[in-house]
Amino acid sequence: MADTASKNATGNFYEDFEIGQRIVHATPRTVTEGDIALYTGLYGSRFAATSAETYARDLGYPRMPVDALLAFHLVFGKSVPDISLNAVANLGYAGGRFGVPLYPGDTVSTTSEVIGLKPNSSGKNGNVYVRSIGVNQDGETVVEYVRWVMVNRRAATDEIGEAQIPDLPGAVAAEHLVVPVDRLSYDDRMVELSGSPYLWGDYEVGEKIDHVDGMTIEESDHMLATRLYQNTAKVHFNQFAQKDSRIGRRLVYGGHIISLARALSFNGLANAFTIAAINAGSHCNPTFAGDTIHAWSEVLERIQMPGRDDVGALRLRTVATKDLPCGEFPYTATEGEKAGKYLPNVVLDLDYTVLMPR
Amino acid sequence: MADTASKNATGNFYEDFEIGQRIVHATPRTVTEGDIALYTGLYGSRFAATSAETYARDLGYPRMPVDALLAFHLVFGKSVPDISLNAVANLGYAGGRFGVPLYPGDTVSTTSEVIGLKPNSSGKNGNVYVRSIGVNQDGETVVEYVRWVMVNRRAATDEIGEAQIPDLPGAVAAEHLVVPVDRLSYDDRMVELSGSPYLWGDYEVGEKIDHVDGMTIEESDHMLATRLYQNTAKVHFNQFAQKDSRIGRRLVYGGHIISLARALSFNGLANAFTIAAINAGSHCNPTFAGDTIHAWSEVLERIQMPGRDDVGALRLRTVATKDLPCGEFPYTATEGEKAGKYLPNVVLDLDYTVLMPR
Amino acid sequence: MADTASKNATGNFYEDFEIGQRIVHATPRTVTEGDIALYTGLYGSRFAATSAETYARDLGYPRMPVDALLAFHLVFGKSVPDISLNAVANLGYAGGRFGVPLYPGDTVSTTSEVIGLKPNSSGKNGNVYVRSIGVNQDGETVVEYVRWVMVNRRAATDEIGEAQIPDLPGAVAAEHLVVPVDRLSYDDRMVELSGSPYLWGDYEVGEKIDHVDGMTIEESDHMLATRLYQNTAKVHFNQFAQKDSRIGRRLVYGGHIISLARALSFNGLANAFTIAAINAGSHCNPTFAGDTIHAWSEVLERIQMPGRDDVGALRLRTVATKDLPCGEFPYTATEGEKAGKYLPNVVLDLDYTVLMPR
Repeated sequence: MADTASKNATGNFYEDFEIGQRIVHATPRTVTEGDIALYTGLYGSRFAATSAETYARDLGYPRMPVDALLAFHLVFGKSVPDISLNAVANLGYAGGRFGVPLYPGDTVSTTSEVIGLKPNSSGKNGNVYVRSIGVNQDGETVVEYVRWVMVNRRAATDEIGEAQIPDLPGAVAAEHLVVPVDRLSYDDRMVELSGSPYLWGDYEVGEKIDHVDGMTIEESDHMLATRLYQNTAKVHFNQFAQKDSRIGRRLVYGGHIISLARALSFNGLANAFTIAAINAGSHCNPTFAGDTIHAWSEVLERIQMPGRDDVGALRLRTVATKDLPCGEFPYTATEGEKAGKYLPNVVLDLDYTVLMPR
Repeated sequence: MADTASKNATGNFYEDFEIGQRIVHATPRTVTEGDIALYTGLYGSRFAATSAETYARDLGYPRMPVDALLAFHLVFGKSVPDISLNAVANLGYAGGRFGVPLYPGDTVSTTSEVIGLKPNSSGKNGNVYVRSIGVNQDGETVVEYVRWVMVNRRAATDEIGEAQIPDLPGAVAAEHLVVPVDRLSYDDRMVELSGSPYLWGDYEVGEKIDHVDGMTIEESDHMLATRLYQNTAKVHFNQFAQKDSRIGRRLVYGGHIISLARALSFNGLANAFTIAAINAGSHCNPTFAGDTIHAWSEVLERIQMPGRDDVGALRLRTVATKDLPCGEFPYTATEGEKAGKYLPNVVLDLDYTVLMPR
Repeated sequence: MADTASKNATGNFYEDFEIGQRIVHATPRTVTEGDIALYTGLYGSRFAATSAETYARDLGYPRMPVDALLAFHLVFGKSVPDISLNAVANLGYAGGRFGVPLYPGDTVSTTSEVIGLKPNSSGKNGNVYVRSIGVNQDGETVVEYVRWVMVNRRAATDEIGEAQIPDLPGAVAAEHLVVPVDRLSYDDRMVELSGSPYLWGDYEVGEKIDHVDGMTIEESDHMLATRLYQNTAKVHFNQFAQKDSRIGRRLVYGGHIISLARALSFNGLANAFTIAAINAGSHCNPTFAGDTIHAWSEVLERIQMPGRDDVGALRLRTVATKDLPCGEFPYTATEGEKAGKYLPNVVLDLDYTVLMPR
């Protein structure tokens, strides 16, 4: 009889990774109108270009695309069993860049390359840096990004080895942003239907917007979402195991908070019809069922798109909080020994770039 | 730097409305098979014409339509940010009339006209009456209805102004009901598949039907539904804010109860293949997660459709309750000082008209 | 005025069944991409053949089929109002055999034949054996199976009558298993994308696999699933009624556990691309919201498919537990007075047959 434990996968440990290693992740995924409906049900997103076929076509898309973040979550989810099943923490994102839109009927699959390794001095774990790429059935890049996670070692060691930390990309530059529409059409009727009169030229660097609304998370909501993305990280699903953890509860997938914050940001950024880049991101504090998410945004940069007078980009910081309305734009502590550290109710600090009609 | 609060929408207040004002609501919405699946998952509706492509075609539809109430919720949801974001209460519906069916792939959008204003003597708020119309991508009317809501004033006033109360339509008359199928086909096999042998001629005015089954509501259920409809009313989603309200809890969207009652009504009204009119409706008491909904119906009128011997209409009263089975048809108090008032467990009193094969 | 209670259905009682009786169940159901998305969201299943259009076609399907268990639940759900609305317990399954796959757009309907009746000596209830068949719009068999349930009598009796117990089919034999693909294509890239290198030849009889992961069930999850299947059994939905039951809670639909166990079994059986038979099954103990499901499997038989060198079958026992990880393969008590009885945390014992590339 075979070794009874041999055929299940228990994920990679720190020792299993090496620089240059390329991993083909399992389970390609066809995205459909069903996923779009469920995504709408989970977040209530109201951006017109991902809500109405007519509006998307009028804007210049060949047909209605899937929300960029749904594409991101599907790509990300595939990488979990190989990269972060034994992760202690998801430390950050950088250099996220969206390529061709994903359309209903498209199939996305993901590969990752290990680009950095940083053993921690404890000898118990280390940081793994990967560049993941999601492509459609024609091999076109849908989204690529770098992320790094702290991964447990299979066994603690005294010989921790050398760190190989990659150069992390900064904010995605204007010339690398992809505008998925050749020529944006935009008229008064479309402004009316978008939910806001404010276009690219109306936003100023430094401007802050309170997105006002709040959304309470239930266990069923975040688990339904995270299973939809075929993300298998145990901490989101297994209360029997989590009850013995330090925190005692299931953790909400960080991407769920990103999608909630984006949906809330409609109230103030309704014409930001898609996301072109995720420059950097941090899940500052954990989120649990029962928490109510609010969000606010700051305009970091107003980017002219080379050769385009129809569309511009806004680099934004969107901050999400739990159980704390955002009228005063909560972010980091300004004094005391925690000065510069995220406030305890701040759960997301996302630096990303959206596209908006001019 | 711009005024930081300027770009978010905080909804209209009583002072912002005027008679004749026409509002184009944001975010057109394409309805898909994904919405249909989620709607089935949320309510478990079993009416064959909105469950099976084959049955719908056999009945005479060109293809399977979307449930009339799903169409209603999508149309209604769009009006919330402009009409009822600052509403104290959703007071009533009248004159709701369904036109062309909505089919998967259709895009619905909504406009409203202000048809009445009634300032309340407190000077703190007033009733706003609107006629909302949802149309498909070809401009055909999917559903139109009047509703009135009590909306807060931006600031209390002593000069409350004059009331302009519109003539509210009564029950939609037979000649204004739309039968969405030119000629209904119906045979023994279809009766068998419908789940009930009772057709239009089998129902009598005054007849009451206990729909027997009960359905318990969870927070995730009503929030998933209400987000699917892109309805943004804060009271349904934000427990952090609601905990300080008089009631301390999130309120269930009234339309969720209408859909539950309609799904429960299958047990006794299985051949009522679609809704043609919502004559009047009242959310008598609030509903919360944890409540179990039951329903019963009374036949108010049996309507001959002009020039049609294939189909008839039934005007019904469907009453939904919370935590109270309906074997004794609970409705209003019959004695004491509350005589004529709704019983505290009655949550919905809906006067509507369904179509049924003859 | 008509009898007010007459038009609702209260389900069949033991006295209502007779051998040879054939029942056409109501509400045919068109399955769509929306159902697939919701199914993925409910279970997080990662089998590539039911996740990606490209993979399904490469494997040899004309297009991506619906998960066999989703087809099973839709077929099963239709039989509930007629067969098991008044059931005391769902006792078992046998001879379940999958035929043509169900594809998005197909419409499934169900008929049942009563094949056995066994009155219980109490005179209060009896076991009803039915063979149910689900067919698509072309009349092709999608799945057929025998199940038996204990059904209440309308009234207790002293004349209990004679038992007519059918010969229950054993495990479905190799020659009756349907392989839904004429010729399976399989290459290294597909192995990589499947999530596991282990194919049919790598499994041995007697081998046990711990599927490692656990999934906690919420009330919303199982109700959303069970409504999606239009299964109307009251015990799953009505907390108001259940609070007065012996157990005091809503029961999770047994099929929900089957689907969870199958999704968990991906971790160890990733190449089991579809289910060909359900040989026998037992819901050993009830499951409730809050329970965390784990699963393990044992290979019972390795079946050569006649005339096929591209595909083989594995007969498996998959056991699911609540709040008990499966590293030690929990099953029945091995000693004491409960020897041979299921352990209290074992909730499912499923004997079924999967197909796997060779």
